[in-house]
Amino acid sequence: MKIAFLGLGNMGSHMAGHLHHAGHDVTVWNRTLSKADGLRAQGAKVGKSTGETVKDAEAVITMLADDHAVESAVLHSGGVLDHLPRGAVHISMSTISVALSQKLAEEHGKRGQQYIAAPVFGRPEAAEAGKLFVVAAGDKSAVERCKPLLEVLAQRVFVIGDKPEMANVVKLSGNFLIASVIESLGEAIALTRKYGIDPHAYVEFLTNSLFAAPVYKTYGGIIAEEKYQPAGFKLRLGLKDVRLALAAAEAVDAPLPFASVVRDHMLTAIGHGMEDMDWSSTAKLAAENAGLK
Amino acid sequence: MKIAFLGLGNMGSHMAGHLHHAGHDVTVWNRTLSKADGLRAQGAKVGKSTGETVKDAEAVITMLADDHAVESAVLHSGGVLDHLPRGAVHISMSTISVALSQKLAEEHGKRGQQYIAAPVFGRPEAAEAGKLFVVAAGDKSAVERCKPLLEVLAQRVFVIGDKPEMANVVKLSGNFLIASVIESLGEAIALTRKYGIDPHAYVEFLTNSLFAAPVYKTYGGIIAEEKYQPAGFKLRLGLKDVRLALAAAEAVDAPLPFASVVRDHMLTAIGHGMEDMDWSSTAKLAAENAGLK
Amino acid sequence: MKIAFLGLGNMGSHMAGHLHHAGHDVTVWNRTLSKADGLRAQGAKVGKSTGETVKDAEAVITMLADDHAVESAVLHSGGVLDHLPRGAVHISMSTISVALSQKLAEEHGKRGQQYIAAPVFGRPEAAEAGKLFVVAAGDKSAVERCKPLLEVLAQRVFVIGDKPEMANVVKLSGNFLIASVIESLGEAIALTRKYGIDPHAYVEFLTNSLFAAPVYKTYGGIIAEEKYQPAGFKLRLGLKDVRLALAAAEAVDAPLPFASVVRDHMLTAIGHGMEDMDWSSTAKLAAENAGLK
Amino acid sequence: MKIAFLGLGNMGSHMAGHLHHAGHDVTVWNRTLSKADGLRAQGAKVGKSTGETVKDAEAVITMLADDHAVESAVLHSGGVLDHLPRGAVHISMSTISVALSQKLAEEHGKRGQQYIAAPVFGRPEAAEAGKLFVVAAGDKSAVERCKPLLEVLAQRVFVIGDKPEMANVVKLSGNFLIASVIESLGEAIALTRKYGIDPHAYVEFLTNSLFAAPVYKTYGGIIAEEKYQPAGFKLRLGLKDVRLALAAAEAVDAPLPFASVVRDHMLTAIGHGMEDMDWSSTAKLAAENAGLK
Repeated sequence: MKIAFLGLGNMGSHMAGHLHHAGHDVTVWNRTLSKADGLRAQGAKVGKSTGETVKDAEAVITMLADDHAVESAVLHSGGVLDHLPRGAVHISMSTISVALSQKLAEEHGKRGQQYIAAPVFGRPEAAEAGKLFVVAAGDKSAVERCKPLLEVLAQRVFVIGDKPEMANVVKLSGNFLIASVIESLGEAIALTRKYGIDPHAYVEFLTNSLFAAPVYKTYGGIIAEEKYQPAGFKLRLGLKDVRLALAAAEAVDAPLPFASVVRDHMLTAIGHGMEDMDWSSTAKLAAENAGLK
Repeated sequence: MKIAFLGLGNMGSHMAGHLHHAGHDVTVWNRTLSKADGLRAQGAKVGKSTGETVKDAEAVITMLADDHAVESAVLHSGGVLDHLPRGAVHISMSTISVALSQKLAEEHGKRGQQYIAAPVFGRPEAAEAGKLFVVAAGDKSAVERCKPLLEVLAQRVFVIGDKPEMANVVKLSGNFLIASVIESLGEAIALTRKYGIDPHAYVEFLTNSLFAAPVYKTYGGIIAEEKYQPAGFKLRLGLKDVRLALAAAEAVDAPLPFASVVRDHMLTAIGHGMEDMDWSSTAKLAAENAGLK
Repeated sequence: MKIAFLGLGNMGSHMAGHLHHAGHDVTVWNRTLSKADGLRAQGAKVGKSTGETVKDAEAVITMLADDHAVESAVLHSGGVLDHLPRGAVHISMSTISVALSQKLAEEHGKRGQQYIAAPVFGRPEAAEAGKLFVVAAGDKSAVERCKPLLEVLAQRVFVIGDKPEMANVVKLSGNFLIASVIESLGEAIALTRKYGIDPHAYVEFLTNSLFAAPVYKTYGGIIAEEKYQPAGFKLRLGLKDVRLALAAAEAVDAPLPFASVVRDHMLTAIGHGMEDMDWSSTAKLAAENAGLK
Repeated sequence: MKIAFLGLGNMGSHMAGHLHHAGHDVTVWNRTLSKADGLRAQGAKVGKSTGETVKDAEAVITMLADDHAVESAVLHSGGVLDHLPRGAVHISMSTISVALSQKLAEEHGKRGQQYIAAPVFGRPEAAEAGKLFVVAAGDKSAVERCKPLLEVLAQRVFVIGDKPEMANVVKLSGNFLIASVIESLGEAIALTRKYGIDPHAYVEFLTNSLFAAPVYKTYGGIIAEEKYQPAGFKLRLGLKDVRLALAAAEAVDAPLPFASVVRDHMLTAIGHGMEDMDWSSTAKLAAENAGLK
């Protein structure tokens, strides 16, 4: 399949590589072109502009930093919207707002282009291993057509509904759930530390009984070690995603009280100098708030 | 071992039965004596008063409803404290306040009796199957001595520290973590339902990716089914435990903001008529708050 | 002074009238032109478009519904920005976002036009009586020049700083403070009602002791009467303002935990069918949450 | 009238003095007897024990530190309950829990003694000036009988209901309302400071427009000055009162979400070293949380 791949960050470069190695005809593009050098060396084509990159594609995948980057690459004059062939499909895989996803669906529809959302869960190592979880939504036939591509990247693809925005909501709500795990663990570990309980023993207990899930292991470990740097996912990016979840919820008149608390704690953590730390540093804040240094 | 077992509710009757069948010399007591009939039929002895039940015991296990019941059975004149032999051990297995556990440790100590706390995680089915998780804390030698008894009841025993109250804090913080899972799932499912996403498909996704833990499966299922009755664990009991967690935290000047939100929502759920439902009915409240009927 | 006045709602029509009666040369404009009939009858001029209305003005006042209306009237091609003479001043009096105010300052600056923000506190009756409170900010000389106009409308004008956005922040923070009064009163009145205390007696006590302020009298009265309709200020408008306060705070990394709670309660009140009520219906929600019908 | 007055702290010593100077026959008692020296010098009698102090009294006023002190003086053997004559009245004026007030009502009732609650609002200066606000509740005839005494101490006496606990609820809810004012001001001032707005100008605006109430002036001034020491009312005492308000609300299944936030912030402020400051230091926390030093 002829694929254009836009966005070669920590995640995207691995994903594009997997598609190339799976035998697809991949043309990549990145705002900073030098990031494409590795893939070029592996034989992938490199586009000079978004328009040129997508103009003959059957599918374009975007894996860009945020709404702003997607708007630039897709909506601006000379971008994806202007040059993607009729009938081709845009697979939006990065974490964007529900509002932007709705707008992309509308604009692509006007031009006879297809659009699905297929955001991913997983850290760069999972992208490298082709073990992401992918949540896809959109027109049924479009999703079916794209599924083989997504399966190259994923340990499992979940199809969640027929409107693209549904996948974005699931992605944002999933990050909200992870942030809630971090906050609750942070509070519980601060409390138990105040009673002299060893955080490693505590996390060992939790993750071998009721909370035997990857997310508790990952973040329980970070919090017990107090190892908030280097950041796997920066606090400010976490804040952005929680804000997008709150905005998606507000758009349908749904309150998310836990997300409000998390958002306030993330802002507070920034106020206390944790901006460059991992988003789990809200647990560091919880410890400080309990008087632990 | 000569064991006195006080408290034959949904959990205690199974636990006492396991100890009896494991060959221990078990005398049981319950405030409502008829609850002892089953165990009596299986050959266990039945005590008439707490004092009589414990007067020759090497170990007494309490598995009573709440602080009040433990105070009645243990601290009141003619109770456990007055009649338990010197050198015998009190194993407190029910969910009680940290303050009461500290008081029990002090009072038993004055009388040359031992005291450990060993609260359990698990529903009645787990108690029946002997598959509870037990968290034990207290004097090292006393815990070692009791461990074989606890292992009869548990799939795993975690020793968490040398002060009994530590086990109570772990129990309360664990229930707080479960309540946080319920609240976050309730909010996330309300949000995704507003976007037309099927709650079963959503829970299926969560529990087969990052949240593959028993607690997400149990409560995700209840919330997707909207099956809050019959209650596995009543809202008011959940509220009691969250209140105890907040009190334990306040005693050491630790805030628990998520617990505050959960507590307020539990009270609100009561205000909206959910008093007799499962404690996961805070998720029903989340749906109503989002305008879902 | 030659004044253009854009926006003739409940507030603006009274304000424009006062300026006209004070002897200024006032040309008014409203999207729905019929709203200008009353002022026309009193001798004010009526413009057909925003561009035409402002093209000879020394000052243009905007008193429009929201950011969207201001963007339409000011930023869109053929609007205020294109036609306001160099050296003339735009006085932005409606409640808009800090971000838009910053943008207006920048755009007017590029065109040699002046810009100050002067939002108002007060209900339509206060506008009618010329008894608004006005908070002004912007370039010192521009503010000085506009002050006589503002004083026509106000019982008092407060100059709060030299950057226009400062006045918008004060306006939004002021509405946040009012919303906090409503929420706290709602909770306190629900609590005291549960103990059988008459809400009128309670409010009478509060407003004759420590809380003898207009805002407590107004909202204490509404809550004691449970008279949430007709709405003086609709819930959804209140929600918009709290959202703008949160956005202004987030832009400078400041958490506003009380605003988060209020926002969630406003969304919840909408979920419980209070959308068309006064924004103080969060107090009705507080009563329902306490189990009062 | 023959009056026993128990508790000669910052407030009580002034109150007892006023009653003495008004011509009543006052016998005072304090745990630390030396605190009675001033009143003795003015001619008041001094009791050696609570029992002796109240044994001939027509009315006993308690103005003690907390629940514990009241329990000691009143409920313990040899205290007020044992020695107050039948038909005499206990006027409980300090801030105590609703639960204790209910218990006092019951116990006095059993002994044919009367009991009313009449807590006060106001700082020591107001007590000195005889300008307190008093909120009284209890049996109508008992309240009527005590009113002349209360009026000696107060600028105004509000009778709020016929059950003593009602006055305690009003007192606790009033302190909750004050704490909410402090929190909301703290957040608003942190926000506006981040935009470069002078806090004095901001408070000047607020207290001369919608928020022209004593409580906004007092606390707005403290926060603008950042003068949290010496403490007028210590953080830990404020925390105690908010906890009592939450407990009173929980007893009737009423959530108080703002109180939960305030409680968490007070605990957090303690964690950040503000224990010995005024309870308005939650506003200092708000500033730090916003990244202001």
